[in-house]
Amino acid sequence: MIGLEHIKEISRKSPSKIVLLVIDGVGGSPHPETGKTELESAKKPHLDQIAKESICGLIDPVSPGITPGSAPGHLAIFGYDPVKYSIGRGVLEALGVDLELKPEDIAARGNFCTVDDKGIITDRRAGRIPTEKSAELCRLLNNIDVSGAEVSAIPVKEHRFVLIMRGEGLSPELTDSDPQQEGLAPKKILALSPQAGRAAEIANEFVLQTKVLLRDEPSANMALIRGFSCLPDIPSLPEIYKLKPAAIAVYPMYRGLAKLVGMEVLSTGDSINEQLESLHRHYADFDFFFVHFKSTDSKGEDGDFEAKVRAIEEFDSALPRLLDLNPDVLVITGDHSTPASLAMHSWHPVPFMLRSQRCFPDGVGKFSERACLEGGMGRFPAVEIMPLAMANALKLDKFGA
Amino acid sequence: MIGLEHIKEISRKSPSKIVLLVIDGVGGSPHPETGKTELESAKKPHLDQIAKESICGLIDPVSPGITPGSAPGHLAIFGYDPVKYSIGRGVLEALGVDLELKPEDIAARGNFCTVDDKGIITDRRAGRIPTEKSAELCRLLNNIDVSGAEVSAIPVKEHRFVLIMRGEGLSPELTDSDPQQEGLAPKKILALSPQAGRAAEIANEFVLQTKVLLRDEPSANMALIRGFSCLPDIPSLPEIYKLKPAAIAVYPMYRGLAKLVGMEVLSTGDSINEQLESLHRHYADFDFFFVHFKSTDSKGEDGDFEAKVRAIEEFDSALPRLLDLNPDVLVITGDHSTPASLAMHSWHPVPFMLRSQRCFPDGVGKFSERACLEGGMGRFPAVEIMPLAMANALKLDKFGA
Repeated sequence: MIGLEHIKEISRKSPSKIVLLVIDGVGGSPHPETGKTELESAKKPHLDQIAKESICGLIDPVSPGITPGSAPGHLAIFGYDPVKYSIGRGVLEALGVDLELKPEDIAARGNFCTVDDKGIITDRRAGRIPTEKSAELCRLLNNIDVSGAEVSAIPVKEHRFVLIMRGEGLSPELTDSDPQQEGLAPKKILALSPQAGRAAEIANEFVLQTKVLLRDEPSANMALIRGFSCLPDIPSLPEIYKLKPAAIAVYPMYRGLAKLVGMEVLSTGDSINEQLESLHRHYADFDFFFVHFKSTDSKGEDGDFEAKVRAIEEFDSALPRLLDLNPDVLVITGDHSTPASLAMHSWHPVPFMLRSQRCFPDGVGKFSERACLEGGMGRFPAVEIMPLAMANALKLDKFGA
Repeated sequence: MIGLEHIKEISRKSPSKIVLLVIDGVGGSPHPETGKTELESAKKPHLDQIAKESICGLIDPVSPGITPGSAPGHLAIFGYDPVKYSIGRGVLEALGVDLELKPEDIAARGNFCTVDDKGIITDRRAGRIPTEKSAELCRLLNNIDVSGAEVSAIPVKEHRFVLIMRGEGLSPELTDSDPQQEGLAPKKILALSPQAGRAAEIANEFVLQTKVLLRDEPSANMALIRGFSCLPDIPSLPEIYKLKPAAIAVYPMYRGLAKLVGMEVLSTGDSINEQLESLHRHYADFDFFFVHFKSTDSKGEDGDFEAKVRAIEEFDSALPRLLDLNPDVLVITGDHSTPASLAMHSWHPVPFMLRSQRCFPDGVGKFSERACLEGGMGRFPAVEIMPLAMANALKLDKFGA
């Protein structure tokens, strides 16, 4: 298998531009009444026109049957083996609230919860207390003093918070305190390696003081911690591909993921139209753009077929502003499927298309799950998108003599 | 993934014969006026008839987006992972002039070049001096005496030559002297490992003496060296597949590649008709034949669409002489695409077909990029060709109990 170390050797700078549009959760499944998927139900003349000029296919973000989280879904599209480069739950949570992590920081996901007088968990999410309540409880926890590290709790949404432990030589190789089940007591945090001993002591001390501080809180009298992790050691897109990449994303987690792989995160308004305005403003300054469109996934997760169809139509109607720029390589795909019928991320492969002067269009006339299956790329792993985009942009030299 | 070590365990000798025809650079792309590729434009009744009797597909020599050099393209077709088994530039150059390398020999690619009076490179190719001039300069360099090794320079074509260093315990882990850029001075050759120290000294001494010897040559007063390498350690086709393989190729590099993997190289005239005569002559003596057809690639690299179409037609018209033999397994494919529109090797997948009594034809009626996409093999990695050919020849036992 070709690896990033080989790509690095054959990649070269060139003035050509690549635009990667990720329509989050775009893949769907047939509606029980019409037999048509969300993409097949939407009026999307621009996407269909681009399909006619593209090489199409279906991607597997991880592999068949595997439902990707947002991080592996995006890492794969960015060219990283999503199994090799994993991002811990804690780090992902931190990225999601725009936290700037330092390489030595340990991040973990916290849940405010309730326990009974024997310390047994009665509600792992404390009835999804409002975010404001969480913020208040976090302020309380930020009084915790542990020797050898700075610990802080940052509210996320509802019952969720991020725990950051900052200190010298701490290792994140720790077990969770969260048993992920009600009717059990929170578990002691254990070191998974000798060098994690100090971090385990700090984490357990934090949990102990949390228990004392929250003792009399009626809505949430305890916290559960899981997913201790550090920033992964991941080679950046500029290093591997010699690109100068930028990201235009509204949600913090996607901005965080983009930053993690070396993209510059551009300021943008919330709508796809504003995102594309931002693309126009910065088009001269970068040679790779990642544009993330969220609401297809949100509507899919809501199980709202019609709303997802409308989100696709909204995306499609914004495209002329992008097509004005006529990028040398245009890639449109999703990070995973989110069929409204399942109301969650799914394992189904995701429609893909790549348009360039050298792509060799394959006769596919529509951008949909069924149409893309007939495409020239067939069904293929998402990690192969980046080399293909680079090749079409004439940014890759020949491999081997 | 199945590896060569597994294939080795299940391969067996049998009297059946496999013929592998490689049409170099056969894959193309649509002509801007007709919308048809070189293969789609050519009259090729025999190739199309074979397609009807074959299982077809599109191969990726390395992986999507990766443009293969000739060596990885062929190694993949011969069943070797082209990323794992790489062949150094120096060795490939030596193979290209029919040099017999010994396992301990180090080969490197040399360029005669010009430098100004400050030693700065002014032309990396010395105005592509004629081959005869290179031969004369090589004779001069062959006066160089370096203690601890025999060094020799063998002319290739125009400004190119091969440097061979033959001595005890020399390692090829060396950097290049060629900075691959004009306006810079040649670089000192450095050892990349402690055991390469002696080889670095020898190489630098060669370069130093070259500078002195060529000092007053008006057309080329210096030489640049790159791609130090040894013969790769590669298991042979007879070892892995228990085959007795032969190669019928006109160009030295392909003959050299074939020899490297254990094929016997047969004598042949230059035309495809003469190559197929050679096949007839030796048909009883071997059970695997690799026949290499070059001019499709040459015409593609020239950017000459019409000439490439004619090369395909020339190849097609020679086929009846092959079909007379009715080999048990006939494989026809290319080592990479060379679209005339790009005038270079490209990353596009390559049409493939395999005909045997047991291949299960898939209804594809033409041998072309678009038609083969509909084939029973779909799009697949070229390393899978050899097991498939062996299976169709009934030369592979069941895997596992």
